[in-house]
Formats: sequence, C-alpha cells, structure tokens
Amino acid sequence: MTGTMKQVVLAAYAKGNPRPSDFRVEEAPIPQAGEGEILLRTLWLALDPLIRLALDETRISGATHQQIGEPMFGPTVSQVIESNHPDYKVGDIVEGRTGWREYAVVAPDQSDYRGPPRIVDPALAPVQTALGALGMPGQTAHSGMIDILKIKAGDTVAISAAAGMVGSLAGQIARMHGARVVGIAGGPDKCQALLSMGFDAAADYKAADFSAQLKAAAPEGLDAYFDNTGGDVTLEVFKHLKRGARMAMCGYIAYYGVGMEGPGPDHLPALYRTIMATGLEIKGFAGFMAGPKAIEDIARWAKEGKLTFPEHVVEGLDAAPEAFSSVFSGNSFVGKLLVKVSEPT
Amino acid sequence: MTGTMKQVVLAAYAKGNPRPSDFRVEEAPIPQAGEGEILLRTLWLALDPLIRLALDETRISGATHQQIGEPMFGPTVSQVIESNHPDYKVGDIVEGRTGWREYAVVAPDQSDYRGPPRIVDPALAPVQTALGALGMPGQTAHSGMIDILKIKAGDTVAISAAAGMVGSLAGQIARMHGARVVGIAGGPDKCQALLSMGFDAAADYKAADFSAQLKAAAPEGLDAYFDNTGGDVTLEVFKHLKRGARMAMCGYIAYYGVGMEGPGPDHLPALYRTIMATGLEIKGFAGFMAGPKAIEDIARWAKEGKLTFPEHVVEGLDAAPEAFSSVFSGNSFVGKLLVKVSEPT
Repeated sequence: MTGTMKQVVLAAYAKGNPRPSDFRVEEAPIPQAGEGEILLRTLWLALDPLIRLALDETRISGATHQQIGEPMFGPTVSQVIESNHPDYKVGDIVEGRTGWREYAVVAPDQSDYRGPPRIVDPALAPVQTALGALGMPGQTAHSGMIDILKIKAGDTVAISAAAGMVGSLAGQIARMHGARVVGIAGGPDKCQALLSMGFDAAADYKAADFSAQLKAAAPEGLDAYFDNTGGDVTLEVFKHLKRGARMAMCGYIAYYGVGMEGPGPDHLPALYRTIMATGLEIKGFAGFMAGPKAIEDIARWAKEGKLTFPEHVVEGLDAAPEAFSSVFSGNSFVGKLLVKVSEPT
Repeated sequence: MTGTMKQVVLAAYAKGNPRPSDFRVEEAPIPQAGEGEILLRTLWLALDPLIRLALDETRISGATHQQIGEPMFGPTVSQVIESNHPDYKVGDIVEGRTGWREYAVVAPDQSDYRGPPRIVDPALAPVQTALGALGMPGQTAHSGMIDILKIKAGDTVAISAAAGMVGSLAGQIARMHGARVVGIAGGPDKCQALLSMGFDAAADYKAADFSAQLKAAAPEGLDAYFDNTGGDVTLEVFKHLKRGARMAMCGYIAYYGVGMEGPGPDHLPALYRTIMATGLEIKGFAGFMAGPKAIEDIARWAKEGKLTFPEHVVEGLDAAPEAFSSVFSGNSFVGKLLVKVSEPT
C-alpha cells in the first residue's frame, strides 16, 4: 500500500500538564510491511492518562519514553490491512500499542514484554472496549478491587478519579460485591453520572465542602480506598480512613507532571502519620497481573447488564492533542476517552 | 509516705528536635496513694523516641499530648511501695507509663486502653528489659518481622535505625529466620556494633557513599524493609527495592518534629512512583498487636543465647533531658536508652 497518512508527533516535552502545543499533526508515508510484519490501520486510539509519564524530558526508569519528533505512542485497536505473518489475516481486529497514527507496521515476533498484538473478537463487544473494560483498564479495575482490596459486603470504599474508565468500573465491581461505594470526581456533572451508574454517593473534590461531602458519604469512615490520583484528593481521603483500612494504589495523575519530587511542602509525613495511626495497608499493582480471567468476568457481567462502560469519543487524530491535554486540566466527560481514527472495512 | 521527690516537667513545646532546655527538673511532693491506688517508686525510665510525638504545641490526633509544666510522660519500670489494691503487693515490680518522676500514684482500675501496670517477673530477666526486648519494643520487632513482613529464608531485608532497640532486635529475629540482614545506622561505630550482633551487612547513612554501601550490601535488591525512620534514609532505600517488596512501617523518627507537612520538596510523588514501579506493599502496625506470645518467644530465644539486647544507661532523672534530646541529634549509642532512676529495695 502506498500514499500518505496522518500522525501526531511530540513537539515538546511537557512541563507539568501537557498542552496541545506540545504535539504536532503531520503527514508521513504509509509504512510498508516487510517479512514477518503486518500493516495495521488504526480504528481507535485510547488517550490514557498514563501516556503522560512518557512525556518528561528525563526518562523515568521503567516507563516508556517518548522522543521529540517521533509519533506519539499509545494503545490502539486496529485492523489488519496486509499480513506477512501466519497468526494474522487481513481483516482481523487487533489491540496493540501502535500510537497516534493512521497506519502502523508491527513485527509480532519482535514484541516487547507486553506481547504481540492481541486479536479481538468483534462478536464479543464493540471492538474499542478492548482498550477499556475488556482490556488493561478493565483488568486493572478488577485486580484492584478483587485481588488487592479484597472488597466485600459491608465495606465502604472510596475511589478517586471515579469518573474515569478504571474508576467507574472499579466502583461498579465494588457494588456488585456488596460494598458501599463513594466516588470522588470533579464537578457536579461527573458526580451525577456516578450516581446514575449506581454509586451510593459521590463527593466533588472541586467543591469547597469536599471534606464534609466525604464525611457525609462515609460517616463511619472508609474501609478501603482505590487511588487513581494521589495529591490533595488523597490527602483529604487519609482523614476519613478507618483503623485497618486498605489502599490500592492504581495511579497518581496528580504527580504525572512531576518527577520524584513535587513542589513543597513535603506530604510524605502525612502518609507516615496516617499509616501509623490507622494501620493502613497500601499496595501497588498493575492490571496485567489480573490475567484473562478478569476480562472474561467483565464481559459476562456486561452481558448480564451489571456493568456499563461510558465512553467519550472524539473524531480524528487532529482532535487528539486537545482531548489528551484536557485530561489533566479537569475535563468534564465520564468514562473512557477515545479517538475514533477510522472505520473498519 | 511523705517528703519530696524529683520530677522532670515540660518547659516548652519542642520546635523540630527537642533540646534539653525544653525540660525542667524540679522538686515536688511525693504523691499519696488513696483508695484503690498504689504508690510506685520509679526504677527505670525508657527514653523512647515516640515520646517526641507528645511534645508538639498542637495535639496530634490519637497521640498522647504533654501539657507545659506537667511531669513528662514515659514508660517506666517501678516498685510497689504502698498498695491499696488487691492485685499488687508491696515489693512487686511493675511496668507502666508513670513518667519522668521518682514516685507516682496509679489507680489500676482506672487505666486507659493500655491497661493497668503489668507485674514483671524479676526471675525472668533484668527488670528493665520489660521496657525493651520483653516489652512493647520487643513485641514491635517480633510483630514487624514475623507478622507483617513474614520474613523467611532467602529474603534480604534492610532495617533503618537498626542500632536502636527495635531495629537491633528486628535484625536478629530476621537472621534467626534465615534472612540476609542489612542494618542502616549513623556512623562507623554503630555499624560495627550491628556486625557484632550478627547483621550480615551495615550501611552508614551519614557516609557520602551510603547509596553504594546499600548497593554492595544488597546487590540484587531488597525483598523487605523494616522502616523506623522515614526521611532521606527511606527515600534512598526506595531505590534498592526489588519488584514485589514488602515494607513494614514501624516508626518515622525523621518526621516526629514535623506535623502532617514537612519543608519541601514534596516526596510523596517518590513514594507513589516507587510503589507503582515495584508493586511495593506497605503496612503500618503497632507492637501491642503481637500479644504476649511475642514476649515468650523473645525470652526463650534470649535464654538460648540467640538474641542480645544492648542497653545504654544514664544515671538519674537529671540526665534525662540531655539523653532524650540526643536521640534526635544523632547520638552514638546502641540499643535501648534507659535512665536508671533508683535501686529496688
């Protein structure tokens, strides 16, 4: 296949929150699939907050690092257009990490630790859910609530960034297990959306009475906390933990823009005091640890009508820089943020 | 009994590290034992770092709070001089929290959650060990290593403030369980003392090459960390943790002088990044959770010659303010810091 395609490259490393001007949309030749390679056309691109970790000038140990002028990396769902590999045939839908571009070539036998593109069954669910509920974010919500927090009936659990894909799913899973679920989100619209999804209560971290809202939502205190943010939200949650509380540390969007050190004061003493005062247990985890069982569970629960996965879709790669930046400046949408790049054939 | 006694009162709330001038030695009447009460003469006073938490002007939720002009609180071993309570007879040795004074009256039936004075068997061990290895610090070391860290053969574990009572005991318990034990302490003398106690390696946090010392002591990284300090020591240890490491948070002497917030920069992001990068599990705990079984174990291990409990003893209450202050300014002694207040009869 010949011709040109659209791609989004990194124009400047982010300082603090990413801005649209940190990215540049450009034309590039459609790449050619060589021996053992497959050519993919991007259908969906997920603008996950975690991408931010690759945008610091100094590489963070363990994280992907983005080069200036190179196409942005990112999780995608694509269709196989040409295949020189026996495991993939033209027309297959795959989930991978091909980045912010309309076409990409992948060598499945030379994959990193995350493995080759995963073939997605379009009969199971809309294919873009492979980037959300039926993919890594779903595994993350499942693993955090079930394996890490061991959520159970009678627990009261709070979730930060609860209107996001992971948070909204985590909250619904906790409710299915009989817990009282308190979602934390920014603004009344998002809080209302959480209640519509079946959350027992919602607390608006942008409201002046956020602390009182949390107190009202969990008058006896919190047994568990599913943290996607860190920062001021978490420091407030610390004041509402019961003795013996558990905390699953899933993400820290408040700190994606800083390195190992943020501007002062030092809040690490607050964490120590909280842990010592409550006997808090904190555990970090990664979604891929949950394995395919998590995805099977979520697919079944969705079929049974127990789960909903809200999506916020923007159209075309041109919209990606602004949409991605809005994640860090307090956007107003709920659920998974997706770019619809093209239609399948 | 009539007459006067010596006591140490708080003269000023501490700003940062306590100083000897924050305390005042004064004379007071020996208190009288009323109905249901016992009169105790103090034999030993423990100058535990945790006392610092009571010396802030603003009371910390959950902690004891010291009033200006009142006798300092603190753990003691005492002898019963007069008894108006059926459970105690004259001559008994008890462990309690009667503070920095030569005599005290206690109403055993009106104790707080920590219970009435505990009668100590002088045949078991020197009575002052009831404040250390055979008391709460011993329970803390036992609980942290065994219940929280679940230490096992093949583990490499680091311990901060390893030359202290809890740290030195924790390290010896870890060795008994087959772990490789790395003690962290300030200065070559303390490090040498750790090696004499059987630690596999010691790292001097005051040395310019502290990081390299830790790397040499645990070239493959750390499976577990028993933290008594927080602060810069812990931030360095974070760089040496293996994936899936466990951390028992036992104390945080680096933060006793600050409230919920220390001077910047904010190191909470470092904790989040460490937890997410390593899957670190952090758990806070309190020694009293370990129960009497821990003390029985330690007494038995000591009899079998498997444990030593170093002590540093200063003589008389007059010495307490300076000795206590030295805990926070980097003293040079090893093990339990005790004031010998008087001899038993």
